[in-house]
Amino acid sequence: MDMWYTEKHSENVGITLKTSKTLFSGESEYQKLDIIETLEYGKMMVLDGLVMCTERDEFVYHDMITHPALFTHPNPKNVLVIGGGDGGTIREIVKHPGVEQAVLCEIDGLVIDKSIELLPTMACAIDGSNPKVQVEVGDGIAYIKEHQDQFDVILIDSTDPIGPAVGLFQEDFYRCVHAALRKDGIMVAQSESPFYHAQIQKDMYANLRNVFPIVEMYQAFIPTYPSGLWSFAFASKQYCTWAPLLCRPSRRRTSPSKSKPVR
Amino acid sequence: MDMWYTEKHSENVGITLKTSKTLFSGESEYQKLDIIETLEYGKMMVLDGLVMCTERDEFVYHDMITHPALFTHPNPKNVLVIGGGDGGTIREIVKHPGVEQAVLCEIDGLVIDKSIELLPTMACAIDGSNPKVQVEVGDGIAYIKEHQDQFDVILIDSTDPIGPAVGLFQEDFYRCVHAALRKDGIMVAQSESPFYHAQIQKDMYANLRNVFPIVEMYQAFIPTYPSGLWSFAFASKQYCTWAPLLCRPSRRRTSPSKSKPVR
Repeated sequence: MDMWYTEKHSENVGITLKTSKTLFSGESEYQKLDIIETLEYGKMMVLDGLVMCTERDEFVYHDMITHPALFTHPNPKNVLVIGGGDGGTIREIVKHPGVEQAVLCEIDGLVIDKSIELLPTMACAIDGSNPKVQVEVGDGIAYIKEHQDQFDVILIDSTDPIGPAVGLFQEDFYRCVHAALRKDGIMVAQSESPFYHAQIQKDMYANLRNVFPIVEMYQAFIPTYPSGLWSFAFASKQYCTWAPLLCRPSRRRTSPSKSKPVR
Repeated sequence: MDMWYTEKHSENVGITLKTSKTLFSGESEYQKLDIIETLEYGKMMVLDGLVMCTERDEFVYHDMITHPALFTHPNPKNVLVIGGGDGGTIREIVKHPGVEQAVLCEIDGLVIDKSIELLPTMACAIDGSNPKVQVEVGDGIAYIKEHQDQFDVILIDSTDPIGPAVGLFQEDFYRCVHAALRKDGIMVAQSESPFYHAQIQKDMYANLRNVFPIVEMYQAFIPTYPSGLWSFAFASKQYCTWAPLLCRPSRRRTSPSKSKPVR
């Protein structure tokens, strides 16, 4: 028997993957979770019917959400991930030797538990083995509000802006992220596909520009995501990706301005 | 009734597109040709069951196979396209005002005829309206052998290396292309997806490096192609893409070396 999983990327186009086994299928209070073995991409996590990651191409997403910010910031010590319950982003963060604390705040404990059990190559740093890693099961928005001026880098590793992640694309949330970052902090968020989600992107980047003085987009190729082209929003108080060495001395300030951020 | 066209990119993964109408379905002596109306990507040309181009994303492919070579070469006057019967590559070539002659050599007259009839946004320069354009229906390998030292740029706009295009990926063919190029000529060929066709690429680039002194790969994002990430091989006698202004003066020679090309 041939079993195929098909995800519609829009009403009229989709990706279809041959599967060999469903490893887990269940529902938390937030969303439906499936972990499926595919022949082409290895194990695949699906939330509410959308592919979140596969063993074969997750490295692109997790490298690209993590390293641009962590290499642009000159000394990232405290890093927070909102979402990212599969653990791949935390795995990349702790590769930076200067990082002292990597906090994962994921709303859905089932995603964490099943990733540790079934996706150990991604969850290898959130399984309790790494003393720098702290796992919080809870609402990222509430967590951010309680931790002002504490992080050098915050990574928003969210699902699409439907279901539990809707609030993570709003201006109010970005103001909380801005407040939770230190004076030279950087935020990166996954920001959907330019090809299929142009309106979501326009709204999201407008919201970010109302809050952060530096907002950039960068892109990466992730074959199992809609269209294969994915984007990331880089929002920063001082540093920019395209010329970090130029930005650092000229934009560094000894005391942070408390005025409204420059657009 | 919902009609879906599904193309397998490998045995175990594919893209699926909702269709509204089959505009043409036929077979030439070389291959099967279908032109289908899709809801997401507009009209789509399919050869032997593989998507060649769609109205919505063909611009990426045709821009990227054409402009890097035509902007790197300082003065491209005579340009040849092997394959490319849809006409999109010729459409881009004739946008360069210095081009005096753009030759299309396509083996399959049916592809040309049906593109002119059904895909006019692509075929707009091969329909007889442009005096710089010359259309040859015939074998590209034979054409190249008969036209030594005549072209500044040759673009290999082929199908995958199955069916009529097999010969266009061989070292012998690249030697003929080298001979058909002038002393500072450039060849660009579509070179498949790094994600699904690694072995084809390794063989193809090894063949190119046996013939041309400068061989580079560049990539572009084409959502309807396997994995969404596509590559192009840039093979050149003198100029390179990454620093054309640096290469030109230092590598330019007044008389071409007739010795075996440097690897």
